[in-house]
Amino acid sequence: MTEFLYDVTGVGNAIVDVIAPCDDDFLNANSVEKGAMTLIDEARATELYSRMAAGREVSGGSAANTLAGVASLGGRGAYIGKVADDQLGQIFTHDLNAAGVRYDTSPLVGGPATARCLINVTPDAQRSMSTFLGASVMFGEDDIDADKIRAANITFMEGYLFDRDEAKAAFVSAAEIARTAGRRTALTLSDTFCVDRHRSSFRHLVKNHVDILLANEAEILSLYETDDFDAALAAVRAETNLAAITRSEKGAVIVRGDETASIAAEPVDAVIDTTGAGDLFAAGFLLGAARDLPLADAGRLGAIAAAEVISHYGARPETRLETLAQSSQARLS
Amino acid sequence: MTEFLYDVTGVGNAIVDVIAPCDDDFLNANSVEKGAMTLIDEARATELYSRMAAGREVSGGSAANTLAGVASLGGRGAYIGKVADDQLGQIFTHDLNAAGVRYDTSPLVGGPATARCLINVTPDAQRSMSTFLGASVMFGEDDIDADKIRAANITFMEGYLFDRDEAKAAFVSAAEIARTAGRRTALTLSDTFCVDRHRSSFRHLVKNHVDILLANEAEILSLYETDDFDAALAAVRAETNLAAITRSEKGAVIVRGDETASIAAEPVDAVIDTTGAGDLFAAGFLLGAARDLPLADAGRLGAIAAAEVISHYGARPETRLETLAQSSQARLS
Repeated sequence: MTEFLYDVTGVGNAIVDVIAPCDDDFLNANSVEKGAMTLIDEARATELYSRMAAGREVSGGSAANTLAGVASLGGRGAYIGKVADDQLGQIFTHDLNAAGVRYDTSPLVGGPATARCLINVTPDAQRSMSTFLGASVMFGEDDIDADKIRAANITFMEGYLFDRDEAKAAFVSAAEIARTAGRRTALTLSDTFCVDRHRSSFRHLVKNHVDILLANEAEILSLYETDDFDAALAAVRAETNLAAITRSEKGAVIVRGDETASIAAEPVDAVIDTTGAGDLFAAGFLLGAARDLPLADAGRLGAIAAAEVISHYGARPETRLETLAQSSQARLS
Repeated sequence: MTEFLYDVTGVGNAIVDVIAPCDDDFLNANSVEKGAMTLIDEARATELYSRMAAGREVSGGSAANTLAGVASLGGRGAYIGKVADDQLGQIFTHDLNAAGVRYDTSPLVGGPATARCLINVTPDAQRSMSTFLGASVMFGEDDIDADKIRAANITFMEGYLFDRDEAKAAFVSAAEIARTAGRRTALTLSDTFCVDRHRSSFRHLVKNHVDILLANEAEILSLYETDDFDAALAAVRAETNLAAITRSEKGAVIVRGDETASIAAEPVDAVIDTTGAGDLFAAGFLLGAARDLPLADAGRLGAIAAAEVISHYGARPETRLETLAQSSQARLS
């Protein structure tokens, strides 16, 4: 068996989250789309922030959250993404390294600030995200560290990268390096609005270039422009080697050729903030896939990781997931 | 009765907290004094941060936490303190204003960065603080907004301000403005190590210039260099108009002339992080004092506010304290 330096290398938008509670009236009054990730410019970010409640700053970014989860499960992970040479960039870099993820993309000097995601969390635990991409989009092919991709069992990329041409070029470059090296690539569709923006590109990628697909139910329905979950599942089964579709409290469905595994959601005492649920499911699932676990075991790791992250504010684990998985008698290798 | 624009105006070191979990071995290996606030320089801050776990950034600063608590209880508060013109300074400013506290001290341009307090929290909920004072000490008499002090029933100042000469001058200036305007001044001794550093200054202040003293048991024993709590209480009773001494899970004792009120600690499901316990007791107690509540009622507000803040990470309330106080049938006015 090949020895990999990393189980998973992630490529994504490097973002610091600003998380604050709000009510539905706040979302309406400030035209924030509930449950979605909306891209905003710096002026809008400043204005929206001025209206938000006092918050906490925690490192985020979809694929970065996933890699923090992989490391917390005891996996070996690396990350490629761009921050600015500023205080938030230092925080992002610190937190990812402190989580045990190898991360050393050079920070941007003299350009926009580190990306911020303003996350307003309503009492129903739903998060509504407004993202100023800042330095994260000044992320080009030159920033793709080929060694981190060649050394990884799976290279995992965010759909969000398609929102800017530079990052999209970096995505394509990363995928080519992985393919040439005989490695697997994984993609998350990220968000239904992201699928709307890039449907044809995503359809082409999923069919031709992606080995492992991650999506939630709404995203996969949007990708195939159908209301029929079974039809979408049949399409994704035909087009990918392996796919995991998350369904919130209904758990997840994993398909690989003729195989299907249904994964139950892990019980949670109280759902506080759903930010990061998909990212952390991906962490467990991808680590399981990298370690060639049976589908049900890989899915269970995803469910355990997702349950931890929705039980508190913020999109990265606050409890060691490896310990949680062990105490749940989940298979880790 | 005089109409005050503010119940309390706070003067203190404007600091952003970086909070991360750790174990006792970490404190030992990195020579962090458990339970204390230790001043560190920028090089030490960089080194210690590089070793800390992934964290969360939340606005802090002792008096600023108190003012956030006053506002959360429905009181009117203002704050005076210095951040730099950087991202952490913007976060501090946002959070305090979003909490409902009037804060507009001009940020420092071209000097050191906004102050940071690296807070390592052990599983026993004890916090060990390492503070890089940065811009907060470039805080001079010119930054003292006399209008905010004259318009406040009580001006509340941190003992921590004595750690640097510039801030100490600002402290003295604020106290003089309050006194000349016929307002009350309050002081917190902040920390036993802070008392050790400035005992003679604090003794002089308490005896001659402070109307209301806040301290915990260890600090008041250190101030009077005694092991006898009753002796310390007798001394503080003779030297101040009003004093509140907190005793962790034993509650608090309030003295005013011949009066004594013993305050029970509020029950807490689980103590997570004791950061801010004293600051939030001060919030409730000072608001009660500003509103001329009976001692027991002012103390109860302090106990309710402290109980909320130790039940989660971070030193500012996450639940509206006014609502908590109302549901506990505490007297607010």
